[in-house]
Amino acid sequence: MEFMNTDINFANELDAKDDLAFFRNEFVIADTNLIYLDGNSLGRLPRRTIDFMKNVIENEWGDRLIRIWNDGWVNSPTELGAKIAKLVGAHADEIIITEATSINLFKLAIAALKAKNGRRKIISDTLNFPSDLYILQGVINLLGNTHHLDLLPSTDGITIASKEIENTIDNDTALVSLTHVAFKSSFMYDMETVTEQAHRVGALMLWDLCHSAGAVPVDLNGTNVDLAIGCTYKYLNGGPGAPAFLYVRRDLQAQLMQPMWGWFASKKPFDFELDFTPADDISRFRIGTPPMLSMKAVEPALDIILDAGMTRLRKKSLNQTEYLIYLADEWLTPLGFTLGTPREAKIRGSHVSLRHLESYRICRALIESPPPAVQVIPDFRAPDNIRLGITPLYTTFTEIHQALKRIKVIVEEKIYAKYSSEQLSVT
Amino acid sequence: MEFMNTDINFANELDAKDDLAFFRNEFVIADTNLIYLDGNSLGRLPRRTIDFMKNVIENEWGDRLIRIWNDGWVNSPTELGAKIAKLVGAHADEIIITEATSINLFKLAIAALKAKNGRRKIISDTLNFPSDLYILQGVINLLGNTHHLDLLPSTDGITIASKEIENTIDNDTALVSLTHVAFKSSFMYDMETVTEQAHRVGALMLWDLCHSAGAVPVDLNGTNVDLAIGCTYKYLNGGPGAPAFLYVRRDLQAQLMQPMWGWFASKKPFDFELDFTPADDISRFRIGTPPMLSMKAVEPALDIILDAGMTRLRKKSLNQTEYLIYLADEWLTPLGFTLGTPREAKIRGSHVSLRHLESYRICRALIESPPPAVQVIPDFRAPDNIRLGITPLYTTFTEIHQALKRIKVIVEEKIYAKYSSEQLSVT
Repeated sequence: MEFMNTDINFANELDAKDDLAFFRNEFVIADTNLIYLDGNSLGRLPRRTIDFMKNVIENEWGDRLIRIWNDGWVNSPTELGAKIAKLVGAHADEIIITEATSINLFKLAIAALKAKNGRRKIISDTLNFPSDLYILQGVINLLGNTHHLDLLPSTDGITIASKEIENTIDNDTALVSLTHVAFKSSFMYDMETVTEQAHRVGALMLWDLCHSAGAVPVDLNGTNVDLAIGCTYKYLNGGPGAPAFLYVRRDLQAQLMQPMWGWFASKKPFDFELDFTPADDISRFRIGTPPMLSMKAVEPALDIILDAGMTRLRKKSLNQTEYLIYLADEWLTPLGFTLGTPREAKIRGSHVSLRHLESYRICRALIESPPPAVQVIPDFRAPDNIRLGITPLYTTFTEIHQALKRIKVIVEEKIYAKYSSEQLSVT
Repeated sequence: MEFMNTDINFANELDAKDDLAFFRNEFVIADTNLIYLDGNSLGRLPRRTIDFMKNVIENEWGDRLIRIWNDGWVNSPTELGAKIAKLVGAHADEIIITEATSINLFKLAIAALKAKNGRRKIISDTLNFPSDLYILQGVINLLGNTHHLDLLPSTDGITIASKEIENTIDNDTALVSLTHVAFKSSFMYDMETVTEQAHRVGALMLWDLCHSAGAVPVDLNGTNVDLAIGCTYKYLNGGPGAPAFLYVRRDLQAQLMQPMWGWFASKKPFDFELDFTPADDISRFRIGTPPMLSMKAVEPALDIILDAGMTRLRKKSLNQTEYLIYLADEWLTPLGFTLGTPREAKIRGSHVSLRHLESYRICRALIESPPPAVQVIPDFRAPDNIRLGITPLYTTFTEIHQALKRIKVIVEEKIYAKYSSEQLSVT
């Protein structure tokens, strides 16, 4: 976008021209004084989910009872996986919805290390979710410390330089496990290049798509990715703690096996045989009975995002993050803020982090200031990031203007100084 | 109960005298022509769950958004665990609700085998859930086949003789992993005796309580049990695939560690440190963000069962299974049925299996016969069991009478012969 200015009318005009604007009506927006910039922690409630879940609870559970499994629930993990597949460039039979991201990483990491027996290196980076690193540390401990975890450093705290990756991936590497869009800085890897680097030395490539699915275009098949995981409760609006997804490329499914041999991972769960035989397909990465209320809530939410389409969403998202960065440059840089996110669109996800020494208290002031102040919900991410999530399905340019203006006022008028530093924020 | 007879009036009288009868009103019973004897696969929907979940979805997710985690959701696993603890004789800080039964068994089995390093034996039995056996087989495979699984045989297909246990548990035993009430036969172990036998040789004792919690009294602390797991969607009516529970005795919590180092297992999840430090308490057995819609639905359901109380529920359950067995003896034994469940009350859970060569087709006829026939939902369990679940919160004596009468008619009139043998039943 060229010729931006800081006037509110400019934001209003952008909203008026926005061809995705009507998707905002798909969501419950109860409090119009609240600017929600945390859809990358917990997506908003889709309106259609309300009636959908009423039917799930009252008719499907309440009335059909156990019969509902045969009516179709038993296939939910694969059916919903097929919807996710459309969003991330995979085949329908390569994705299931099952358990949580951490559990899926555990499953796939062990499957990968067993398949690459003899190689001792796992590569990740210092920008990754600590939760992913913890899982990898646990896997290494479980397997008797025969492997080690190499973390690519970030010199600027925002990006990972490509030469770091080139220098670190070698013939001893079993698995490269990275998060595609960094949860804090919003740095986005070039999926194709890194995957190719891993393949060149015979390593398996795993991408965590928690901050990518529904936020940026992903083409798992086109970039020949081996393994992927991701959550459904951020940009996909599937509900708090909604079950995660797991991708295994078709040709790898029969070669890899995860260690939790639950009955739904077996070839014929309802034969009740005493010895386990794994399913031949992606179902071997399932475990037990899925939490169906949480699972079902993902379904209507996915339909909305499929309807909007990733190309349009990405275009709006980039316009919005660019606009946000422009306003930050104009208003906040003079107040001591720095940008914690790449300026280059190609390597930026759908959120922006602004850094300031008083970020924690500024976040509290944004969240807790009483009316008539507009209320803004960002995420604080230690040590000094105010993370602002852009969810183009329902974020408006006007909201971005109001939020940035509010940050400006909070700092100029030292409103943050009224707040102290007790830990608040949760993903 | 003495002086039983087969007249429907007798059943009606028992219902009239039932001091738990009014609990049936707590549940949605939409179809009064349906006799649901499968509450041990999926418990009925509590009426209060409808409004409760409406609030969870519309107000807590929809309106509070991310703030709801700090409002209290972050503590749901331990708060709901404390409610389960009251049902199974544990301390509040010894139980959490987390993930699924299979995952929890995986976690605890690995924790136990690591703690009992050097011992090579895991003991289970042939009556156990195949899903539990699969998980144990997966654990053995994962740890490099240094352990083996010894399955106690059942000579009658219904019970496990105590001498089998005595003969098999030895100094090489790391873990005894048994299901307290067998899913098919309803055989119930003497928890105290078996736990003591395990402890005598220095093994850890793990009980699967899936068919026990909410069905029979359990006293984990009183019998000094080390580890336990169980589900919440059967007798606890927590909803389809609702998250499971996990118990670790207080003094063992700091000694044992599970292998999936999720961020909620860490001491300070919100510090986002790059290195994992486990929580000191039961939270170290958590993993990732829980599926909150499914998690929250457990709460109102637990309140009902706590209100009814396990002593009253067990008394009614035993009366009902005894009455069911009496009717089976009178009506069905002459038709070729045998009892697949212990006659002795002390070793019987809250369901009864009836065995017949045509059990599968009889089940289909029970489920699929059109009105005016009463519709009955049992579970078929291979090879020849019709499993009838008694859930004293909502099962009536009259329903038991009608269901048994219906089985009699289906066999006498060979109604089952109209149905063929394509696999149906789930969970």
